[in-house]
Amino acid sequence: MTYATSDLTALTYVLTIRLKVHKPSNSLSRALNSISRGGGDVGSIDVIQVGKDHVIRDITVSLRDAQHGKSIVSRLKRVKQVEVISSTSPVLSKHEGGKVSVEPRSRVLNNADLAQVYTPGVAQVCNEIHRRPEMAFTHTIKGNTVAVVSDGSRVLALGNIGAYAAMPVMEGKAMLFKQFAGVDAFPICLDTQDTDAIVETIINIAPAFGAINLEDIASPRCYEIEQRLQEALDIPVFHDDQHATAIAVLAATINAAKLVGKPLESLKVVASGVGAAGLACLKLLMKAGVHEIVGFNIGGAVHRERTDLTEQETWLAERTNHDCFSGTMKEALEGADMFLGLSVGGILKGSDLKVMAPDPIVFALANPEPEVLPEKAAKYARVIATGGSNYPNQINNALVFPGIFKGALKARVPQITEEMKLAAAYALAAVIPDDEIHEDYVIPTVFDERVASGIAAAVIEIAGRG
Amino acid sequence: MTYATSDLTALTYVLTIRLKVHKPSNSLSRALNSISRGGGDVGSIDVIQVGKDHVIRDITVSLRDAQHGKSIVSRLKRVKQVEVISSTSPVLSKHEGGKVSVEPRSRVLNNADLAQVYTPGVAQVCNEIHRRPEMAFTHTIKGNTVAVVSDGSRVLALGNIGAYAAMPVMEGKAMLFKQFAGVDAFPICLDTQDTDAIVETIINIAPAFGAINLEDIASPRCYEIEQRLQEALDIPVFHDDQHATAIAVLAATINAAKLVGKPLESLKVVASGVGAAGLACLKLLMKAGVHEIVGFNIGGAVHRERTDLTEQETWLAERTNHDCFSGTMKEALEGADMFLGLSVGGILKGSDLKVMAPDPIVFALANPEPEVLPEKAAKYARVIATGGSNYPNQINNALVFPGIFKGALKARVPQITEEMKLAAAYALAAVIPDDEIHEDYVIPTVFDERVASGIAAAVIEIAGRG
Repeated sequence: MTYATSDLTALTYVLTIRLKVHKPSNSLSRALNSISRGGGDVGSIDVIQVGKDHVIRDITVSLRDAQHGKSIVSRLKRVKQVEVISSTSPVLSKHEGGKVSVEPRSRVLNNADLAQVYTPGVAQVCNEIHRRPEMAFTHTIKGNTVAVVSDGSRVLALGNIGAYAAMPVMEGKAMLFKQFAGVDAFPICLDTQDTDAIVETIINIAPAFGAINLEDIASPRCYEIEQRLQEALDIPVFHDDQHATAIAVLAATINAAKLVGKPLESLKVVASGVGAAGLACLKLLMKAGVHEIVGFNIGGAVHRERTDLTEQETWLAERTNHDCFSGTMKEALEGADMFLGLSVGGILKGSDLKVMAPDPIVFALANPEPEVLPEKAAKYARVIATGGSNYPNQINNALVFPGIFKGALKARVPQITEEMKLAAAYALAAVIPDDEIHEDYVIPTVFDERVASGIAAAVIEIAGRG
Repeated sequence: MTYATSDLTALTYVLTIRLKVHKPSNSLSRALNSISRGGGDVGSIDVIQVGKDHVIRDITVSLRDAQHGKSIVSRLKRVKQVEVISSTSPVLSKHEGGKVSVEPRSRVLNNADLAQVYTPGVAQVCNEIHRRPEMAFTHTIKGNTVAVVSDGSRVLALGNIGAYAAMPVMEGKAMLFKQFAGVDAFPICLDTQDTDAIVETIINIAPAFGAINLEDIASPRCYEIEQRLQEALDIPVFHDDQHATAIAVLAATINAAKLVGKPLESLKVVASGVGAAGLACLKLLMKAGVHEIVGFNIGGAVHRERTDLTEQETWLAERTNHDCFSGTMKEALEGADMFLGLSVGGILKGSDLKVMAPDPIVFALANPEPEVLPEKAAKYARVIATGGSNYPNQINNALVFPGIFKGALKARVPQITEEMKLAAAYALAAVIPDDEIHEDYVIPTVFDERVASGIAAAVIEIAGRG
């Protein structure tokens, strides 16, 4: 397995700087030097226009943030024979004006149309729904619409950035819902991080929605919110960070285990990170038959004799690590078949994997930096998956949420059950035929059109059995 | 002024019944007879297919409700030589699946796109908004998105039908927002009618929205909700039923007064109905210079010696009817220049208008039946406006909300001020050039493209002066 060199530093702010570079010809290299000395990482260099004694070029530069961008532009302005024409952020441009719109499904051409979709004709539909509330599913947007709800308390790796700053993520999800599954999704970011207020608010706005996708909500609040909402509402409530991750991880595990010829029941799993996502993964792996698990939190191996565990970790301690293993993670890896990381980047060296059982499966899903660099793990691991698109086998929530909500909406189920999650994972795994499973291909890409339809069909089938 | 006969009965449920009518040729008339005897009103009769010994026809029938439809279909099944093939509701069909959708503003073509609109690139945008919250207006949907919020407590003439049944109206509004003004609007129907809960919920979901359009909320709760929200939020909050109606009424009044050559300051106005919409109309008329007003509620003329008035009615009593007129509405109409009805249908006969001053202006806006039938009023009134599209001069909220929100969003104002409402009314009136103002044309139609842009420009101009 070989990898291209990847940039895992924190240079996430990309700027395109347009320069007019005058002769002599070493002006460009002086400009590039200036960028490098300022801490910027030069990417592509395009020619926009060639003049008699100058060339206009677009330089794509990776930087830390907007402030860093300003300082680089200031530096460039001091370079002789170089003029800064403009500096723009291509990523920011993609988000300008927001990323989703609300569109009428038909055009109102005249008063006759208006009298049907609006007053007075709409009264007929209101009356019918008033009499038969289930018609809300067929005659309003409810039947195909998901609320993507966050309180902005745990957004990506950024942490608690609040409702306004969380919006771009929720809008991005709404885009993917439509493109991958034809589901209408609307971003709702809550200007409160109080559990009661969040629960009450979502219950109050539920009539327009056929399902609630909770997103980027910190634990342990996320557990209580999901549970209380599911009890209060008759539509599915699904915390994506937990369950979509779990479904994708199980799918990749199913295929990886097939590849190395080990049944799920035989896998010895070491898990780094037992937060909301990590625990959900372990729960679903256990549901699928995995039973030999040692989980680690920041205080070490999770076992039932520890007294510093959260309620959720205690749940795990009671069901795993029956031998009360209490050594280090490296010790735990001895003879382990699989490492599952949902914690922080760079905690393992490649050589730490040497002690694992033959054909190790290593899922290093911390973002943006994995628990162990795939380049370093490659020598020891047989199957490697990460959370990034810059390596093969990306474990991405976007593989799961469009299809599972599509299925839940179509089957109009009141909740997404454990059986449906399990079926969704098997359906996602089955997108790759057995003879195509490969070290670099244990999970399909989000652009594979079979993904959402396959997961949706599996959910609908389980719903039909109920 | 002449009018086509219009149907003002409660036959709002329209059904298209497809019949196979066998020979002999009087089968059709027997079928139509059966419909009429069952209380249905036959509309258009179309030929779908002509066979050797039968004709297939679509009969459009107006009925009371779905139950009435079933009884008519049962009757038809007993008519000899007539087969019922199907019965469908064209209005219900228009609402199937809901009336708006959420669409991505760009398509995600590959991993490079995905890395910009979603993880990891989206983090750059989140970070920028976290640092500079005003970027939410330029880099999320907030800048062009309105929440259309109702608690379903006073929907059209239907009353308190609740959140689910209110959705078709809010979706209809969302359609018109986009078609008429390019504004993204999303329907939010609240599963609570508690004032505190409504206020808290809307505050909590506000981050995604650039403005809040309150709709179909009963009074007096609507006043408190609007006021508390406007104080709590830094985006405009606008109760459409009050203010959009008021703006449209003032616009029509401006043009009608021009037509009859009376300045606004000279108009003596009798108002039937001083609920939320009626009061808002009177407030805005007063702001524009009208000062001689007698309002009526169910208890008679509103004046300051009455002890049974609500807080809002007391406000009116203190500012109008200075002579404490306490007679009947018919007596009040003596010498009045304008009648403004926002109450209930059929309370006046045409001849009641005989005592008004020359060139009476009669706005009978109760829905679906006006306070006085235009056919009856035509003999006495010079200008007549109603709330329906079946007469000239329809006073329709849809004339106002798309443009006024468009202007407020573009100018990014924190609230829609009285000056903006006034300017919006004058802009709406000015869509009709002076030399085109006519008894049947004191207000443009909602399909006039100058309406929304004119109102938006007026709001933006006022905002620029602030």
